[in-house]
Amino acid sequence: MRRSKRGDVDPFIVMDVMEAARKAEAAGRHIIHMEVGQPGTGAPKAALERFAQDLTSPLGYTVGLGLPELRARIAQHTRAWYDVDLDPARVVVTAGASGAFVLAFSALFDNGERVGLGTPSYPSYRQILRGMGLNAVDIPTTLAQRFQPLASDVAEHNLDGLIIASPANPTGTMLDKRALSALSEACIAQDTALISDEIYHGIEYAHAPVSALQVTDEAYVVNSFSKYFSMTGWRVGWMVVPQDHVRQVERLAQNMFICASHGSQRLALHAMGCHDELAENIEVYRDNRDAMIAGLQAIGFTKFAPPDGAFYIYVDVSDYTDDSLSFAADILEHAGVAVTPGLDFDPAHGHHWLRFSYARGRDDITEGLERLARFMETRR
Amino acid sequence: MRRSKRGDVDPFIVMDVMEAARKAEAAGRHIIHMEVGQPGTGAPKAALERFAQDLTSPLGYTVGLGLPELRARIAQHTRAWYDVDLDPARVVVTAGASGAFVLAFSALFDNGERVGLGTPSYPSYRQILRGMGLNAVDIPTTLAQRFQPLASDVAEHNLDGLIIASPANPTGTMLDKRALSALSEACIAQDTALISDEIYHGIEYAHAPVSALQVTDEAYVVNSFSKYFSMTGWRVGWMVVPQDHVRQVERLAQNMFICASHGSQRLALHAMGCHDELAENIEVYRDNRDAMIAGLQAIGFTKFAPPDGAFYIYVDVSDYTDDSLSFAADILEHAGVAVTPGLDFDPAHGHHWLRFSYARGRDDITEGLERLARFMETRR
Repeated sequence: MRRSKRGDVDPFIVMDVMEAARKAEAAGRHIIHMEVGQPGTGAPKAALERFAQDLTSPLGYTVGLGLPELRARIAQHTRAWYDVDLDPARVVVTAGASGAFVLAFSALFDNGERVGLGTPSYPSYRQILRGMGLNAVDIPTTLAQRFQPLASDVAEHNLDGLIIASPANPTGTMLDKRALSALSEACIAQDTALISDEIYHGIEYAHAPVSALQVTDEAYVVNSFSKYFSMTGWRVGWMVVPQDHVRQVERLAQNMFICASHGSQRLALHAMGCHDELAENIEVYRDNRDAMIAGLQAIGFTKFAPPDGAFYIYVDVSDYTDDSLSFAADILEHAGVAVTPGLDFDPAHGHHWLRFSYARGRDDITEGLERLARFMETRR
Repeated sequence: MRRSKRGDVDPFIVMDVMEAARKAEAAGRHIIHMEVGQPGTGAPKAALERFAQDLTSPLGYTVGLGLPELRARIAQHTRAWYDVDLDPARVVVTAGASGAFVLAFSALFDNGERVGLGTPSYPSYRQILRGMGLNAVDIPTTLAQRFQPLASDVAEHNLDGLIIASPANPTGTMLDKRALSALSEACIAQDTALISDEIYHGIEYAHAPVSALQVTDEAYVVNSFSKYFSMTGWRVGWMVVPQDHVRQVERLAQNMFICASHGSQRLALHAMGCHDELAENIEVYRDNRDAMIAGLQAIGFTKFAPPDGAFYIYVDVSDYTDDSLSFAADILEHAGVAVTPGLDFDPAHGHHWLRFSYARGRDDITEGLERLARFMETRR
């Protein structure tokens, strides 16, 4: 049977790592998971208790843009976190950030148009673009620029769109207000659509991240209940779009998704009132981060940008290998620690990089660092 | 800010009807809803009880193709309903049938390719195709052919893909095994990808619908937990793909969706054991259908194909109007019954047609038919 060329996207290398880890566990080994990009915690307990009440009525389709009370609550959250007055009409509830990207790409770009992303970056940006008949344009970045694209890249790469992420996956680095403003201005000057991925907001260590909403109304701003709100498996997120794009995005959402899961929308609404419980998760990430920075440096993994947010550290391991894939396999086999080779995030340079996730419990991080230290000792 | 041409999809006319009905209700009027395409019932009660237990553990991402136990259960269901031996590896759990179409179109078609659909048809086929940079090709059908495309249409319209639906929305008609085989053979002969929408299976009145899985392995077969399983708002469905397409669809699913909502997947698994409760819903639809056929004919709405399945009747109202939009508005205003103009389903001929849905309770159907009768009396 026929198949498309655009659907022939790259495999997720981290999936192979996860499968190898699963096999090792099935064979009786104990594995520390530093490959997984999701919290070990579930949805807030108080939210789940309220959700149990929702289950007593039928949960039919919601309107395409999402539950009105959830959209209003997200606008309120935007005021509280960023001091930005946001019309709830601009909020689109989506099937996770993934669903937001699918909608954004449909609403913004025609076949073959060029959408830039600073590499290293979240692999699915590139693959969704490809799967939807668009061209992903890699913008190489460096550790010295903390892996973020520059305003000058917009014109240089002749972009129809630009995706930025702050805090970013896999690096945890952020864009400050000046850099974000410069990128926004460059995009407006070039008629380039700016898409700002802000799904790690709320998980930050030194200072609050800046939202694109603080510097411009001319952007698609993507967020999620998966990370700070700890609701990965529920697949619910949101996107803020310019006022004059709402109707178009609404029609696309009605047709491509009908709506995000109604149950997930109800649970998300309840989770927005659970900041105390969620703050405890952030303290764990903060402890983990400090332990990771100290631990990795002690082991000899010194080439990284200390993360501003999220729960990843992206490390240059070129002193030890030219093949991060087999290096990760060795670490899994000999140290019992699963880590992600950089190739998922940067096809050109990822063979020299590893991503360490510290989203799990504190004990796992301590044990994982000890195992990594012993492993590196054997290679000296 | 820039926007795409492909994202400029048509509005859903039924949404305007629903909004007008909502306003009438807000103004204190009582409206009978024959416009809505979803069951009034919720998920099965026994399934919800088991689901409450699932909420005690964190529901993280599932693997991209869905929970292995749900995929196995779907394969078992396929054996039970169609006597087809299906490898669970071919089952992809999706974010509703909507998510299945997005995946199928990415996996099968490149930019600008031609995908046929018999009109009248579900409006979102056309809009999703457009939103993804593909060409929807209308294949006009007639009441005499029970609104289904013919095998000869595949070559005649030079199609890269063909979407069929049985039972169909908005007509409720089905394809028999001979017609389905002929369509499948015509598609294979022309290297045309066949996509079979089977989301109304389980809601049928005279005989069981035929699945494309009974006649070919060379098709994408889309199904849903929204209709028979009465789980619309949970947004979970499934798709069976050819064995040699599984890896490609898996990669697309991982990137474009990560997974369908984990909670919805758990609930769907439980719902698959609730046939007794679900059978009661079908009896309501069956009674509604008989009442609708008799009632509409008595009123003078005689030009329709009696539905084989689903919960719609598509009626030629050209004896009464050349403008189904204003006719539907009159019916809402004067009879207090919300119905859908045919223009959503067939831009070319829908001005002569109305869709009546009978998915709600029996009392609503009786009351709605009485109101329609009184309304038509006033027009004589």
